[in-house]
Amino acid sequence: MKKLMEIDTVDLNDEESAVVIIDQTLLPGEVKMLNLKTAKEIWDAIYLLQVRGAPAIGVSAAFGLYVLSKGIASDEKEPEAFLKKLAETRDYLDSSRPTAVNLSWALKRMYAVAEKTVKETGSVEKAVEEMHRESIAIRDEDIEVCRKIGENGLALVKPGDGILTHCNAGKLAAVRYGTATAPIYLGHEKGYDFKVFCDETRPLLQGARLTAFELYESGVDTTLICDNMSALVMKKGWVNAVFVGCDRVAANGDAANKIGTSVVAAVAKQYNVPMYICAPTSTIDMASKTGDDIVIEERKPEEVTEMWYEKRMAPKGVKVFNPAFDVTDHSLIAGIVTEYGVARAPYTESLAEIFKKKEAGAVLK
Amino acid sequence: MKKLMEIDTVDLNDEESAVVIIDQTLLPGEVKMLNLKTAKEIWDAIYLLQVRGAPAIGVSAAFGLYVLSKGIASDEKEPEAFLKKLAETRDYLDSSRPTAVNLSWALKRMYAVAEKTVKETGSVEKAVEEMHRESIAIRDEDIEVCRKIGENGLALVKPGDGILTHCNAGKLAAVRYGTATAPIYLGHEKGYDFKVFCDETRPLLQGARLTAFELYESGVDTTLICDNMSALVMKKGWVNAVFVGCDRVAANGDAANKIGTSVVAAVAKQYNVPMYICAPTSTIDMASKTGDDIVIEERKPEEVTEMWYEKRMAPKGVKVFNPAFDVTDHSLIAGIVTEYGVARAPYTESLAEIFKKKEAGAVLK
Repeated sequence: MKKLMEIDTVDLNDEESAVVIIDQTLLPGEVKMLNLKTAKEIWDAIYLLQVRGAPAIGVSAAFGLYVLSKGIASDEKEPEAFLKKLAETRDYLDSSRPTAVNLSWALKRMYAVAEKTVKETGSVEKAVEEMHRESIAIRDEDIEVCRKIGENGLALVKPGDGILTHCNAGKLAAVRYGTATAPIYLGHEKGYDFKVFCDETRPLLQGARLTAFELYESGVDTTLICDNMSALVMKKGWVNAVFVGCDRVAANGDAANKIGTSVVAAVAKQYNVPMYICAPTSTIDMASKTGDDIVIEERKPEEVTEMWYEKRMAPKGVKVFNPAFDVTDHSLIAGIVTEYGVARAPYTESLAEIFKKKEAGAVLK
Repeated sequence: MKKLMEIDTVDLNDEESAVVIIDQTLLPGEVKMLNLKTAKEIWDAIYLLQVRGAPAIGVSAAFGLYVLSKGIASDEKEPEAFLKKLAETRDYLDSSRPTAVNLSWALKRMYAVAEKTVKETGSVEKAVEEMHRESIAIRDEDIEVCRKIGENGLALVKPGDGILTHCNAGKLAAVRYGTATAPIYLGHEKGYDFKVFCDETRPLLQGARLTAFELYESGVDTTLICDNMSALVMKKGWVNAVFVGCDRVAANGDAANKIGTSVVAAVAKQYNVPMYICAPTSTIDMASKTGDDIVIEERKPEEVTEMWYEKRMAPKGVKVFNPAFDVTDHSLIAGIVTEYGVARAPYTESLAEIFKKKEAGAVLK
């Protein structure tokens, strides 16, 4: 079997008209590739979290709508009927995870290409061709953004360094490199010999189930720890840098990410370890002035008290506070690593500079 | 049924010649009291962790040797034969958990009383009477030490305060008040209306299984959180003080306690929350100059990767670092709460003062 590093989390098999994904619900116990061919199969895969992580979902949906457009085109030769059926399929796929922004975004982008092509050429066949090109572009952009983040992050560390990460901002959440894991994978390719510590990330254990899995399977020196062990490993001098992903960065650099990120940040400060937030510019929200503008989702108590356990591990009736995210104050962040470079404090200025570069198209096409 | 606050973790039923304990292996699912009457039952209870926590084990062993001495005295009327059988029983009980210092300590103390009484009076009956008195004294001393720690800790907080604790330094580890929980219970008796946050304490979940249980069952306002949520609850201003127990305090104030304690300490510093170590003077080791002298036990990886879980939650083969304790630097500790008062920095001086008070017998008899 191929090593995990050689497999993309989401891929297209054009000959078989299938979206190919790793079934993440079976990890870390089993690596099973799924060939998704029907709308129902694609919908289920997203709904059942067989594919998860915003970029991976977006790419799956893009490939999915393209694959399905081929079948639609052979049934509906008339442009209008084709677009009508395509729109129905788009809406159906979009209903699989209503809050996933990347899902809507990718589906809209794919449909817009089909609509534009039909309008310009009147050709259903041409529209399908353009959707193929667009889905590949969406995939390639994700890989390229992650690769750039990886290069920019890699410049912040040196061979042999210890790196700590929290949750899964890994290749399993994207296509190839992930965000927080991108510097690790790029360094690994260059023989950097990193020692990586993965927080298990309670309550849902994404670090244990996904990050420890993908790094270990890729041949990276990986050590799993509980979230409460970070201070000890840093005190021992085993960690030279922290790389984490993020869900949303505010204009002042405050970063919302998986619960526990701000614990890592406080510990890293105590032990003088730089903490870097790996953030595609798509997650930087200049309209949010500070992290106070970011609402924290609270999830059900059973994730803490029951999930994963053979028997209930907390008394019935006890209150549980189960926030899914926290906000790390910008004062604790050594740098925000984007595809257009590393922003440093003061972030209000440096993030604005990043967006100027993005608008100028300086780094990426 | 009685409320948990009205039940001691370890008790003596002299009429029935039984040691009465709460079976902690069934918590938090079931509260079952066990009447231990035979040497085998007492040995099993300690070995199987039906009773755990250094003070609780010590008191159980003291009550146990007394209870068994009654049977021995009715079989062996001759003083020498009585002491010989008693010594055998002492050694048998001592083998139940060889590394538990309090176990040996309590058994030696009980046997010494029997030996002294036999030597002075020649009476087996008198020896049994003195063992009864001594076992009650050992129990009462534990309660009194915890109560004093509770009073000294309670002076550091005010009604309505939020308190965070980690692991279980609770009544389930002692007899009545625990150490870190003593200020909480004493305040609760006075209607202080604390809001308590319990870290679940991975990997063994003592916070979820034991502390959340005992506080909730005692009617304290208790909220269970994962260890990685402390920063968020402190940022929200919900925590006014941290109280934790400890396994060993060095002369400079460095405190070894359950893994994760030093994470809480770094987070508490970040959010300006005072962190207090609740430490009976028996845990302060003036012979250890700093925390560097304290060896950290590492435990098996399966506690992190498998225990409690329905299926394995981490990839097979991945390395796991699983330290059982960490050392919190004295610079992060706002005070060390003992039965003789609260020591403050510089600890090398203040802890020496505490021992002077102890030697003078100023507070406790």
